Amino acid sequence: MAAHADRYIYGMKICIVGCGALGSVIAAHLARLGDIEVYAYDTSEEHTGAIRERGLQISGAAEFTVKLRATSRPEEIPACDFGIVATKSLHTRAAMDQSARIFRDSAAVCSVQNGLGNEEIIAEHVRYVIRGATTMAAHLRGPGNAGFEFYSNLWIGPFEPSNIDYRRVEELAAVLNRSGLQVVPLPDARGAQWTKLIFNAAVNPVGALTRLHHGAAARFLPTASLYESLLEEGEAVARALGITLHGDPRAMIAEGASAPGKRNVSMLLDVMAGRLTEVDFINGAIADRGEKLGVPVPLNRAVWQLVKGLEHSWSDPQ
Amino acid sequence: MAAHADRYIYGMKICIVGCGALGSVIAAHLARLGDIEVYAYDTSEEHTGAIRERGLQISGAAEFTVKLRATSRPEEIPACDFGIVATKSLHTRAAMDQSARIFRDSAAVCSVQNGLGNEEIIAEHVRYVIRGATTMAAHLRGPGNAGFEFYSNLWIGPFEPSNIDYRRVEELAAVLNRSGLQVVPLPDARGAQWTKLIFNAAVNPVGALTRLHHGAAARFLPTASLYESLLEEGEAVARALGITLHGDPRAMIAEGASAPGKRNVSMLLDVMAGRLTEVDFINGAIADRGEKLGVPVPLNRAVWQLVKGLEHSWSDPQ
Repeated sequence: MAAHADRYIYGMKICIVGCGALGSVIAAHLARLGDIEVYAYDTSEEHTGAIRERGLQISGAAEFTVKLRATSRPEEIPACDFGIVATKSLHTRAAMDQSARIFRDSAAVCSVQNGLGNEEIIAEHVRYVIRGATTMAAHLRGPGNAGFEFYSNLWIGPFEPSNIDYRRVEELAAVLNRSGLQVVPLPDARGAQWTKLIFNAAVNPVGALTRLHHGAAARFLPTASLYESLLEEGEAVARALGITLHGDPRAMIAEGASAPGKRNVSMLLDVMAGRLTEVDFINGAIADRGEKLGVPVPLNRAVWQLVKGLEHSWSDPQ
Repeated sequence: MAAHADRYIYGMKICIVGCGALGSVIAAHLARLGDIEVYAYDTSEEHTGAIRERGLQISGAAEFTVKLRATSRPEEIPACDFGIVATKSLHTRAAMDQSARIFRDSAAVCSVQNGLGNEEIIAEHVRYVIRGATTMAAHLRGPGNAGFEFYSNLWIGPFEPSNIDYRRVEELAAVLNRSGLQVVPLPDARGAQWTKLIFNAAVNPVGALTRLHHGAAARFLPTASLYESLLEEGEAVARALGITLHGDPRAMIAEGASAPGKRNVSMLLDVMAGRLTEVDFINGAIADRGEKLGVPVPLNRAVWQLVKGLEHSWSDPQ
């Protein structure tokens, strides 16, 4: 590990892949440290151009603007020690196809994305992968400008098939925590990931299909009951996989519902913008695993079918 | 029955309650006979006023304009021999509250509505009730103007709790058939009603939630699979109730899907117009009966919950 440790004498290099809302918040915190070289890769030239010109502006739970190296041309980014992938799940493969070279000798690449299956895609491109899940929520306010309402946990742990040394997980957690984020390293982060997944599998499709903001859906008896039925299916699949949840998806629902304001879940924002959603990585992933294991998942399958149908409607099919 | 038969010497009187798209098509066919007094009650003064001024215009599978007595004031309508209720299911109670007097001495009042539960509401207001279900589809083109694409069956039979003489069912079928409609009297019309109900319980919520027209939803694998799963739940509930289906809901789906053009199901039209849907009388009715009987109905319950949530979203809830 000497060579690896040596690199830090000259400044750790971290590249954020997919510098959208959440990626921007993470990148800005790391860049603010001053002793880390932070690179941000995002396909939006408007966004990366704005960051280069005016810096990356963060508002909400923290307010600051910071300079960092943002580009839409991954070939401009040098080899980095760590990667943090924050794209929408359905862009993971394209993003890694473009950026894998950056991480050829890196200590690890960490997903902080929604849903299941991102680590598997990342592991097709790089040697060492870290599993991550977060309840942080952020939103882009405009090019070079991201907002977030509150600090919340980011759980990270080894992506088991990549046999990563757990000390790399702790190193990444340490630098992220030093930057002001709330990162919890775990020897087994599957429970945290599944807790967030099960939460997402309830609130996201219900919001997307009913167009209710989260608080309203949580307070309206029919949709609250559907939340509960979806949670129970997800919990049954986790149990069948031998995964012990880390945290309580019902507490996440209650916490979000009691927050002031009307907040639309990300899948509803996607639907309103006519963007493809992450439903394959959320309800589709739970339904696939449940059906394979013989665990009944009719509701996760049904909401997956409905959201796929909704996406299909945008093509005005015959 | 002498008094009853006597009435026909002076012209049978029939009142259509809810002269919307389907009600207009039926009313116009009856009025065209010339030897029937046809009354139409509808709450839309624009529609009834247009019919009084210019007659009721029908286009599509038949093209004609006919005079009939239309009003939004039920007190102007005399006692009638038969009633035909064609309102949306969620307006049945209000319509019968307003019009029950017309049917105090009538031979029967017949529902031709979607869903389950309309006959029960009608029977709270009048003595003799006929159960009905149809695959006719119609649409209002404007005030006084209704279109329909094809003639299709209307099945009618006794509403069992009202102990109606089956000859009244045959009388109503005879006059409707004489008017050019395709009416099939059945001693037990529950099978026909459930076939249509099960069809509606698949295509209507899927269209409303995905915004796909029927043909596209039938040809897209995820939504076609959901159609099938919803059908199977409805069939299981019908079996548990001892009802033998009359016709095949899958054939109805295939027939609609192979028709040219893009036709939105009525529940999607309701959603696009921001009108409350008939989901309580369709998926809600199947889910209620299934849960009471111990027949699993998770998907009918889930789509009911989602459509109720969608309706709730229109009130912009906190």
